[in-house]
Amino acid sequence: MVNDRIRLKSLLDKVTTPEAAADLIKDGMVVGMSGFTRAGDAKAVPIAMAAKAKEQPFNITLITGASLGHDIDRMLTEAGVLARRMPFQVDRTLRAAINRGDVMFIDQHLSETVEHLRSNQLGPIDYAVVEATAISEEGGIVPTTSIGNSASFAILAKKIIVEINLSQPANLEGLHDIYIPTKRPTRTPIPVVACESRVGLPYVPIDPEKIAAIVVTDKKDSFSTVEAPDEGTQAIAGHLIDFFKGEVDAGRLDLTLQPLQAGIGTIANSVLTGLVDGPFHDLRMYSEVLQDSTFDLLDSGKLVFASGSSITLSAACSERVFGQFEKYKDRLILRPQEISNHPEVIRRLGVIGINTALEVDIYGNINSTHVNGTHMMNGIGGSGDFARNAYLSIFVTKSLAKEGRISSVVPMVPHVDHTEHDVDVIVTENGLADLRQLAPRERAEQIIQHCAHPDYREALMDYFQRAAARGGHTPHILEEAFSWHTRQQVTGSMKA
Amino acid sequence: MVNDRIRLKSLLDKVTTPEAAADLIKDGMVVGMSGFTRAGDAKAVPIAMAAKAKEQPFNITLITGASLGHDIDRMLTEAGVLARRMPFQVDRTLRAAINRGDVMFIDQHLSETVEHLRSNQLGPIDYAVVEATAISEEGGIVPTTSIGNSASFAILAKKIIVEINLSQPANLEGLHDIYIPTKRPTRTPIPVVACESRVGLPYVPIDPEKIAAIVVTDKKDSFSTVEAPDEGTQAIAGHLIDFFKGEVDAGRLDLTLQPLQAGIGTIANSVLTGLVDGPFHDLRMYSEVLQDSTFDLLDSGKLVFASGSSITLSAACSERVFGQFEKYKDRLILRPQEISNHPEVIRRLGVIGINTALEVDIYGNINSTHVNGTHMMNGIGGSGDFARNAYLSIFVTKSLAKEGRISSVVPMVPHVDHTEHDVDVIVTENGLADLRQLAPRERAEQIIQHCAHPDYREALMDYFQRAAARGGHTPHILEEAFSWHTRQQVTGSMKA
Repeated sequence: MVNDRIRLKSLLDKVTTPEAAADLIKDGMVVGMSGFTRAGDAKAVPIAMAAKAKEQPFNITLITGASLGHDIDRMLTEAGVLARRMPFQVDRTLRAAINRGDVMFIDQHLSETVEHLRSNQLGPIDYAVVEATAISEEGGIVPTTSIGNSASFAILAKKIIVEINLSQPANLEGLHDIYIPTKRPTRTPIPVVACESRVGLPYVPIDPEKIAAIVVTDKKDSFSTVEAPDEGTQAIAGHLIDFFKGEVDAGRLDLTLQPLQAGIGTIANSVLTGLVDGPFHDLRMYSEVLQDSTFDLLDSGKLVFASGSSITLSAACSERVFGQFEKYKDRLILRPQEISNHPEVIRRLGVIGINTALEVDIYGNINSTHVNGTHMMNGIGGSGDFARNAYLSIFVTKSLAKEGRISSVVPMVPHVDHTEHDVDVIVTENGLADLRQLAPRERAEQIIQHCAHPDYREALMDYFQRAAARGGHTPHILEEAFSWHTRQQVTGSMKA
Repeated sequence: MVNDRIRLKSLLDKVTTPEAAADLIKDGMVVGMSGFTRAGDAKAVPIAMAAKAKEQPFNITLITGASLGHDIDRMLTEAGVLARRMPFQVDRTLRAAINRGDVMFIDQHLSETVEHLRSNQLGPIDYAVVEATAISEEGGIVPTTSIGNSASFAILAKKIIVEINLSQPANLEGLHDIYIPTKRPTRTPIPVVACESRVGLPYVPIDPEKIAAIVVTDKKDSFSTVEAPDEGTQAIAGHLIDFFKGEVDAGRLDLTLQPLQAGIGTIANSVLTGLVDGPFHDLRMYSEVLQDSTFDLLDSGKLVFASGSSITLSAACSERVFGQFEKYKDRLILRPQEISNHPEVIRRLGVIGINTALEVDIYGNINSTHVNGTHMMNGIGGSGDFARNAYLSIFVTKSLAKEGRISSVVPMVPHVDHTEHDVDVIVTENGLADLRQLAPRERAEQIIQHCAHPDYREALMDYFQRAAARGGHTPHILEEAFSWHTRQQVTGSMKA
């Protein structure tokens, strides 16, 4: 079986143990590891690294595609391996270390990390550690359920450690489209002109001499943690479907809409699932992570094609999809995250981007990352790549958190990830605010009336009106702007 | 002379007075007007519109490329013509009306306005009012010293009013490259692959039947208001030159650097002028406005080519350039602002973007627009188009304003136009902070030590250290974050 997966036979003598491979990673190194939203992460070597560090402490700069599964970030954090970490994470233990200032975390637009590597503004990568379905006859690396940054990591790294994962279906081969932009300033256009465009190779082309070790594993990807749609997320989906219908009626969209992107997580996943019941057809996705909802839409016949950088599924959906992967394969493509999230392609295709906000303010600025403007949750991820360049930039959130003690609509967000310029539509379970071509004072009325929870609407309107009476294009009372957050820090509730 | 300029003879009977042309504009219309950073603005019709409105009140939505000259925004504001205005302005009277909430101003990324028009999310444009050097034999409109949004305005408008400006040199013809992206989702790559790329037509192709009126003028463009370099701007230029030299030494750049963009205004202009004395050569610009510094660099032989959307010069420089325009013409190109500022092209070319900040915070977030987070100055302009997509995103500012009563480095900016993710380098006269690949706590040390004025350094470090002691990835004390701004509002100074 390993013989089928390592087809360049001269590499067979590189097969070794995770421990031996982990021993190659030395203190101070920069390591690029596969993994994007729990999919296709290296699973054996990082765990061996954590074990080794407990005996012989060392630390590294770890760069990934996005988040990892299998508590790997927790284990590496607990073992003190992480000095620096980028560009995204979702682990509770690592998050605490970041917020203590123990791990230096660099939160980046997901399309940009490899640009920095390619121009030597980051790196060089000492070791790329990438999961693979197979190594081709030529020594090309065939990724698994994600590409993320792995292609550029492998191409740019001094040395490569490959994890051949036997639990990943062999027929993932052919799914991937590896296209790497050329060096600047002589770069040529990225030739992707449709969700379906195949413009690269089905494997990562590398010099096989760079492969320092191969580890064989059979550990499955961690399953996604998205929750089922509930009343709130269904209401959000309903408002958005009504909005899309209105766009169709106005002649701005037809029933095939424009290519769709949905951020990771329960709300965006539920919204997409909601489209199963809409009048839309021949939909396409140009997204980063393909979640359960993508396959619900494919099964319903509503979605005809999906392009992403990873496939991250619940246990049930995973069995359904990977148990009969040939049924889906010709309607799917995985790309490097630089391409799935590339401003050039997103703007060209006119993607409709649907991303989740932590909180929004009355003028349409979005906080996606920082609780109370101070404590990092996960990271901006790809939301900025999409929101800035989208045909329509939509943010979704429930209007309340913590059993109503927190309003997701606030006077001013204490951390801005997406500015007012990049936000077209905000949707909560209460309604939808269409902010296109509105001035800030007009946006405030829309957001307060349509998005805020009734429990907080009056207080928001009171703030806005008192601020507006003082004047300004974007009226604020700076002494009060964060009073809801500071009150909640003291009393546990934003309510006065 | 008019005969040479209106070469499609059937249009000669459309020539009329500014007053008659202005009479075509009716209450409630959407008007797209030429003009970008004072260059190539329509000069006769808007003034006639203001005069008319004093007799018969009416108001419109006015969309331009960027700012206008000749006090036109003042006159239109005073006459009550402006109900809505986008995407940029610099006029004191209009600014006051915006901040009173009397004019609804929509602040947009300059590359995006015509995308909204093309997808019917804005408009339709009832009248385009565009200044022209000439109308070709086929009825094509040859722009003057700017293109801005005029090409798409004319193409998308129901009707067009042309101002033929005899004071604009006839040999501007051939300078322009009009390329309009195709409709989404079937758009093809924008074929610009170098500053020099010519990919379109030298005129705006329109149906001549749409030309409703032609007005002949001879009023010159308003001159730029940039000030000469001073000690502070020279220090900023010096720090930046040292940084570029360091990048060359590190092998990340060569002495031709990457294509340069510089925002409008005295500081960015001075920084660019400073490159005359550096070791760099064969420089290129891919910018939006070409200012005096562009021609200083061309004259010095350091700059070999400049692409922009407008040419905006001081009186002295204007005489030098337009008095011998053939000397410069083959080293210049003007493009629609959608193309000069297009994310696709900026990212492809790897532009070095140099833009001016109003204030910066200790974590690298930038306020470009709002005094005290409330009062609009001008608008974000193209700074977001460049900062997000640049190879290097650099922000410049003097560390003090109002004779030292205001620090341009503050604990938290009360309005964010550019998030920490989009800022690589900040420069003041005190020094340069290289923020690449740094976590927020590391950035704070760099910004406070290198950019803040010594008078405020200790207070900033005190804030940062007390905030960091409380924890968080981006430590803040929300109760105090705006205390410098509120103190200044009360006492006139940020000093405690």
